[in-house]
Amino acid sequence: MKTLKVVKIGGNIIDNDVELISFLKDFASLKGPKILVHGGGKSVTKLANKMNIPVQMIDGRRVTDAETLEIVTMVYAGKINKNIVAILQSFNCNSIGFSGADGNTIIAKKRPKLTIDYGFVGDVVKVNISVVNILLNNGISNIFSAISHDEKGQLLNINADTIASELAIAFSELYTVQLYYCFEKKGVLKNIDNNDSVIEKINQVSYQELKSSGIINEGMIPKLDNCFYALEKNVSKVCIGKSDMLFNKEFRCTTIQ
Amino acid sequence: MKTLKVVKIGGNIIDNDVELISFLKDFASLKGPKILVHGGGKSVTKLANKMNIPVQMIDGRRVTDAETLEIVTMVYAGKINKNIVAILQSFNCNSIGFSGADGNTIIAKKRPKLTIDYGFVGDVVKVNISVVNILLNNGISNIFSAISHDEKGQLLNINADTIASELAIAFSELYTVQLYYCFEKKGVLKNIDNNDSVIEKINQVSYQELKSSGIINEGMIPKLDNCFYALEKNVSKVCIGKSDMLFNKEFRCTTIQ
Repeated sequence: MKTLKVVKIGGNIIDNDVELISFLKDFASLKGPKILVHGGGKSVTKLANKMNIPVQMIDGRRVTDAETLEIVTMVYAGKINKNIVAILQSFNCNSIGFSGADGNTIIAKKRPKLTIDYGFVGDVVKVNISVVNILLNNGISNIFSAISHDEKGQLLNINADTIASELAIAFSELYTVQLYYCFEKKGVLKNIDNNDSVIEKINQVSYQELKSSGIINEGMIPKLDNCFYALEKNVSKVCIGKSDMLFNKEFRCTTIQ
Repeated sequence: MKTLKVVKIGGNIIDNDVELISFLKDFASLKGPKILVHGGGKSVTKLANKMNIPVQMIDGRRVTDAETLEIVTMVYAGKINKNIVAILQSFNCNSIGFSGADGNTIIAKKRPKLTIDYGFVGDVVKVNISVVNILLNNGISNIFSAISHDEKGQLLNINADTIASELAIAFSELYTVQLYYCFEKKGVLKNIDNNDSVIEKINQVSYQELKSSGIINEGMIPKLDNCFYALEKNVSKVCIGKSDMLFNKEFRCTTIQ
């Protein structure tokens, strides 16, 4: 099977024009089929502030009322997504910007209101890869913003890490899929105060040990659970680290396999 | 050759949720390959006002500085485009939202600064139909916002009527193309005060007469010049009128042939 790379980038790249252009130049040069998934960085909060719309976060997740959904759609699917596509075209990387609604690729369901009402936030229920695969077969890269829909005309805000893992899982039927989570650190750290203390390999056994000993805790646990879930669902490997890991084989990162 | 319909809608449909959903339901039921092009309606001005960014229009065209381009991209390619795609999916019309940057479909050049500096406004220099055609051949409709790029990483604001005519012209190589401009009136009117005085057919000869007699004047002249330009470049016919003309053969409109 051919290898497909699914790459997720976050705020540390998106919020910095120089970093973004440099990353996209490298991304454009990556050989083989590839998909990019981006979050929104700080632009949503900035725009909400300019419009005097209050921002509410619970456990690091954005509460998305109708006005916030409009902002999120404008920033993710409009501003950030189209800028990325235009920059990639300037590096001769033919690409198309997608939301999950485009090509009916990612179908989500509004999260039920339990103790917390997150508003127009969705959980993925189905991924249709056919349209994206036609484009990949024609040498076109797909750039996903973290917006999807419920097939009833409602857009929904989705976690970008989840979009990346769900796409990676769905494409594992057709490709050997490598999933890359790029963030500001070199990987999962043994010592949070030492940026070079990267744990190079984690498997299910060592993960349990690292959790029991408290080395992996809090925010990293849902991230890593998401990675192991992808591996269980036939994604070939998952890497976490700085985006350099994609372009330089010598660059250390955390590989989860 | 197969027939392709290129349909442009404007503010009278986009600014009214009920009209938009009703139009999209009908659009979804149209048989055969189809492309939708949308303008931005009043949302851009509304958002600019909320953000305290001044709006400047010269001869009905928006002066697009960097901040305005950001708003235009967010509203056209984000909010409006993704909403249209989500609504079409709810009517089982598989579609993908495009800007001219996506698939490197429409390449534009920043308009040179002569007496007026329009800012980041572009004129179309080339249309690449290959990616859109792959999608059309797979039964997917393309929904174009009026944003494009210069192949150097710069997004540009383009007139939506022009996007529609340039796509119609480019596709005339492969299809018999019908171009539909939907607006709030039933067509070109003989008497501006009588909404039923639709001129049903206009050709080059009658156009010259209608201009000399002053029946066609001002804003309609560039619109009609654009239509005749499309016909010269092998578009098969151009219709102007209410969107009903698309779904009801008995509905009167102006046909330019």
